[in-house]
Amino acid sequence: MAAYYSQELHGPFETYDLGDFELENGAKIRKLSLAYATFGTLAADKSNAILFPSWYSGTSKILELAYIGAGRALDPAKYFIILVNQIGNGLSSSPSNTPAPFGAGRFPQPSIGDDVRAQYRLITEKFGIERLALVLGGSMGAQQSWEWAVRFPGAVARVAPIAGTARETAHNRLLVESFIEAITSDPAYDGGWYGEGEVHRGLRRHARLFALSGFTQKLFNSAGWSSLGFTTTDDFVTGFVENHFLPQDPNNLITLLNKWRGGDVSQHYGGNLAAALGRISAKTHVIAIEEDVFFQLEDLAAEQALVPGSVLKRVSSPWGHLALFGVDAGYNAAIDGLLTELLALAA
Amino acid sequence: MAAYYSQELHGPFETYDLGDFELENGAKIRKLSLAYATFGTLAADKSNAILFPSWYSGTSKILELAYIGAGRALDPAKYFIILVNQIGNGLSSSPSNTPAPFGAGRFPQPSIGDDVRAQYRLITEKFGIERLALVLGGSMGAQQSWEWAVRFPGAVARVAPIAGTARETAHNRLLVESFIEAITSDPAYDGGWYGEGEVHRGLRRHARLFALSGFTQKLFNSAGWSSLGFTTTDDFVTGFVENHFLPQDPNNLITLLNKWRGGDVSQHYGGNLAAALGRISAKTHVIAIEEDVFFQLEDLAAEQALVPGSVLKRVSSPWGHLALFGVDAGYNAAIDGLLTELLALAA
Repeated sequence: MAAYYSQELHGPFETYDLGDFELENGAKIRKLSLAYATFGTLAADKSNAILFPSWYSGTSKILELAYIGAGRALDPAKYFIILVNQIGNGLSSSPSNTPAPFGAGRFPQPSIGDDVRAQYRLITEKFGIERLALVLGGSMGAQQSWEWAVRFPGAVARVAPIAGTARETAHNRLLVESFIEAITSDPAYDGGWYGEGEVHRGLRRHARLFALSGFTQKLFNSAGWSSLGFTTTDDFVTGFVENHFLPQDPNNLITLLNKWRGGDVSQHYGGNLAAALGRISAKTHVIAIEEDVFFQLEDLAAEQALVPGSVLKRVSSPWGHLALFGVDAGYNAAIDGLLTELLALAA
Repeated sequence: MAAYYSQELHGPFETYDLGDFELENGAKIRKLSLAYATFGTLAADKSNAILFPSWYSGTSKILELAYIGAGRALDPAKYFIILVNQIGNGLSSSPSNTPAPFGAGRFPQPSIGDDVRAQYRLITEKFGIERLALVLGGSMGAQQSWEWAVRFPGAVARVAPIAGTARETAHNRLLVESFIEAITSDPAYDGGWYGEGEVHRGLRRHARLFALSGFTQKLFNSAGWSSLGFTTTDDFVTGFVENHFLPQDPNNLITLLNKWRGGDVSQHYGGNLAAALGRISAKTHVIAIEEDVFFQLEDLAAEQALVPGSVLKRVSSPWGHLALFGVDAGYNAAIDGLLTELLALAA
């Protein structure tokens, strides 16, 4: 797994050392390191910075490949784009790269809020940025985007949470628990004290559950995966989804899943979601994938309705939630259009 | 588990012995026994018989409780209703009640077609019925209903498959495989050679996966389960779904799941679904639950379009697929209306 979380596969990336970092639950991460990659040049007035945190089981690399480029909405010729790796993803401080006694099965459990607090220090201390032109992210990246807009309203000019909620629904918690259980129920997991590669059965089980609702039923029933060169349902699930998760560290995934499960911008506002979302002053595009089973349109719409002056935007893809990966040209074009529109708004 | 599959909990039921029964795959079930329960009186001209096969993990008892009664569509004052237990459900011949060497992990694997062939013998040999006024069923009962209408068109005047397809979709096969894996991956399962109660972890895991898409997201997110007296998501999933599966025999469930996974009326017609469904002469109501995640509306609609003179009927329930259980009064009333309408058609 050391080979997987490498500059060769996921770089180039840099790291910022935040020193000892106290988490919201009172635990402490020693020498917290945030890994990030930047594209473009920060304007002299620092008005063109975009922050894009990573999603579950992804790194800054997939964000770069799927969303950044000349002529895209996130064009390095115009913007200074910071792709930041969330805590626990294997590039930033994680169970897999933290030395004993606090690594592996003893890594402290961070929250979405901890990520955003750490990222705030990165953009202010490292880059001297006081206000981001845009914060965006998909899935767990959307959870972080929501948290940014609620917690630091003055620092976020625009925000685009994509395919993710501000507060976990009951069903999504149950779904995430099934992912956690799929890995931890493997006897080889052994409370987090496994050897490299030993938890492959749990990772494969998790991958298949992830595929079942990460994509749409139509993608399977119409063999939509054939566009990627796969030959059967099983060939696709093994070759694409198991292949994605097998090289990853189980403790990292569990850390991320627990963080995902706990996502809730209202927790510092007495559980009052309307009060929390009412704090948002950013121009807000809530972007839903119509076919998304992980984060359903109606749940995103209910949250969007609580954000002053926000707009609900819909995109459609037979790939469902995992259109986020950039595998659907139609989705990519639609997202670019929506982000370009949002970036053009005065804020 | 012997106590669970009993006359006390699931009776009264009777059994019909078919002797040694050769399956479509060439294997043989010794002394195949079909358990069934009847309600009402068979008319002298035998024109009022209704056949209703059981679904996954259910017996004739739940069909009786949820669908039969005075004033209901299935009224014993008008009809002679035969509730038949599918092979492997614990009441008819199953891994759990078949003696060594062919029980438990060595029970032969039947198909949906085998059930229908056995049921045909029951209704012709035992009751002398040549034509059923109605065959209906939900989920795996729908699979059996489809198979009846395709295989024995002259014996089925009317058919109502509810919330189930004539041929498995790719996604549904993957879903069923996740249920199988949830049980068989429990080390205590041991290839089917477990002791009573030992596979409870696998059964609990299976129950939670079943709940995730068996009900709708809205049911969880609106705490719709509170109408049954449960207090939290976990209380509901444990008290309702784990409670349903824990007393059942894992080998029985695996036998049923493999049968479910293989459902395909086209297999004797060269894989040509249109040719198979074109054989149907019964008046056909294909009934879809709009919110069903297991068997989606669009998949049922695609099959219905291939059945001459058929009609697609839609019902709606926040309970989704598992509205079949009879927990939603709105669903029950809607189904009764549709069945009454179908039974009134000349056929």
